Amino acid sequence: MEKCVLIYSGGLDSTTLLYYLKDKYDIQALSFNYGQRHKKELECATKITRKINVYHKIVDISTIKDLISVGAITGGGIVPHGNYSRESQKQTIVPNRNAIMLTIATGYAVTIGVRKVFYAAHYSDRAVYPDCRKEFVEAINTAMRIGNDDQVEILAPFVQMTKAEIVLLGDTLCVPFEETWSCYEGREIHCGICGTCFERKEAFYIAGVRDPTKYEV
Amino acid sequence: MEKCVLIYSGGLDSTTLLYYLKDKYDIQALSFNYGQRHKKELECATKITRKINVYHKIVDISTIKDLISVGAITGGGIVPHGNYSRESQKQTIVPNRNAIMLTIATGYAVTIGVRKVFYAAHYSDRAVYPDCRKEFVEAINTAMRIGNDDQVEILAPFVQMTKAEIVLLGDTLCVPFEETWSCYEGREIHCGICGTCFERKEAFYIAGVRDPTKYEV
Repeated sequence: MEKCVLIYSGGLDSTTLLYYLKDKYDIQALSFNYGQRHKKELECATKITRKINVYHKIVDISTIKDLISVGAITGGGIVPHGNYSRESQKQTIVPNRNAIMLTIATGYAVTIGVRKVFYAAHYSDRAVYPDCRKEFVEAINTAMRIGNDDQVEILAPFVQMTKAEIVLLGDTLCVPFEETWSCYEGREIHCGICGTCFERKEAFYIAGVRDPTKYEV
Repeated sequence: MEKCVLIYSGGLDSTTLLYYLKDKYDIQALSFNYGQRHKKELECATKITRKINVYHKIVDISTIKDLISVGAITGGGIVPHGNYSRESQKQTIVPNRNAIMLTIATGYAVTIGVRKVFYAAHYSDRAVYPDCRKEFVEAINTAMRIGNDDQVEILAPFVQMTKAEIVLLGDTLCVPFEETWSCYEGREIHCGICGTCFERKEAFYIAGVRDPTKYEV
């Protein structure tokens, strides 16, 4: 079976992508510890990949936290609560995070002779996060191809799908949603009121799929 | 004075770029420990930036060495000696190294509100290293602009210059060449016979500039 590299956070979107790819590829899943406060997602990533017997590695690049630490995720800021609005969620941008993970994943793919690197950028994130947009996926794919003599390509199959559509797809793929992690607070269970919990709840609601997540609120 | 970020290895090329930029910008120089065996270059980078009072930070991403470790530089391979030929130097490719450094430097630039990221890709490296070519600089610049809402750009002012032309420029800028480091072996002084030492010697010879480097051979 052809190998691929997947950037895998343990969240709802990348777990759905993991399940979408698992019968098509021999997946090499990479999670990144970049100093995020919600390290809980890394535990979820380990648990889920073990369960379905997928190769998984956590890459520790937490040393870059000192360089890239504005906002709520790696810096000292407060995680925005309530509505998943464009302005409030901008506080959760970790500058260039996806590009950093993609370039490391690409270097790894070239090293082990793998031609495809997947990540779970999706349409609902496009307003806030420029590195989740289709134009970015195309541009970084071009750069990675040119920079590695066409040995590798970047693929983001969900880039035109909303989070609700990902929930629908995940439901048909029997994704264990209850084991995935979204909350930026990173406590024992999902807080239920941060922007990301809000977006998660909304996606299940719109998709008409029962939300198995345990929330504090 | 406008700030810029410079990817700075302590080598001949990036030290010339450092000197070229130092009166034009308030430089934030970043060196990367990516597990290279020639760590000597990091000591040189520290020494030179101290000397001219430029902000300098070593970013430790040596944890990625386990992922990206083919060839002679970070892996267990042998540094190629003699002629700086295309085939022998291909063993010194660290897959996607420049892209990884550029994306981290870009994240840092956006974090501190700096609009320009420089690196010293040059024309003599284009045959062996795809991430030193003009097409790559343009492609990664496009990706970084799109991925960060046009807050930053990647600049490689030497991309069309040969190493000999860089030596000539460095000579006029009074670059302390004897304090820069090229050798991939990373011993006390330059070995004088690895491909990179060969290229260094040749550049001084073609430029007609006295080579102050101490070589073993």
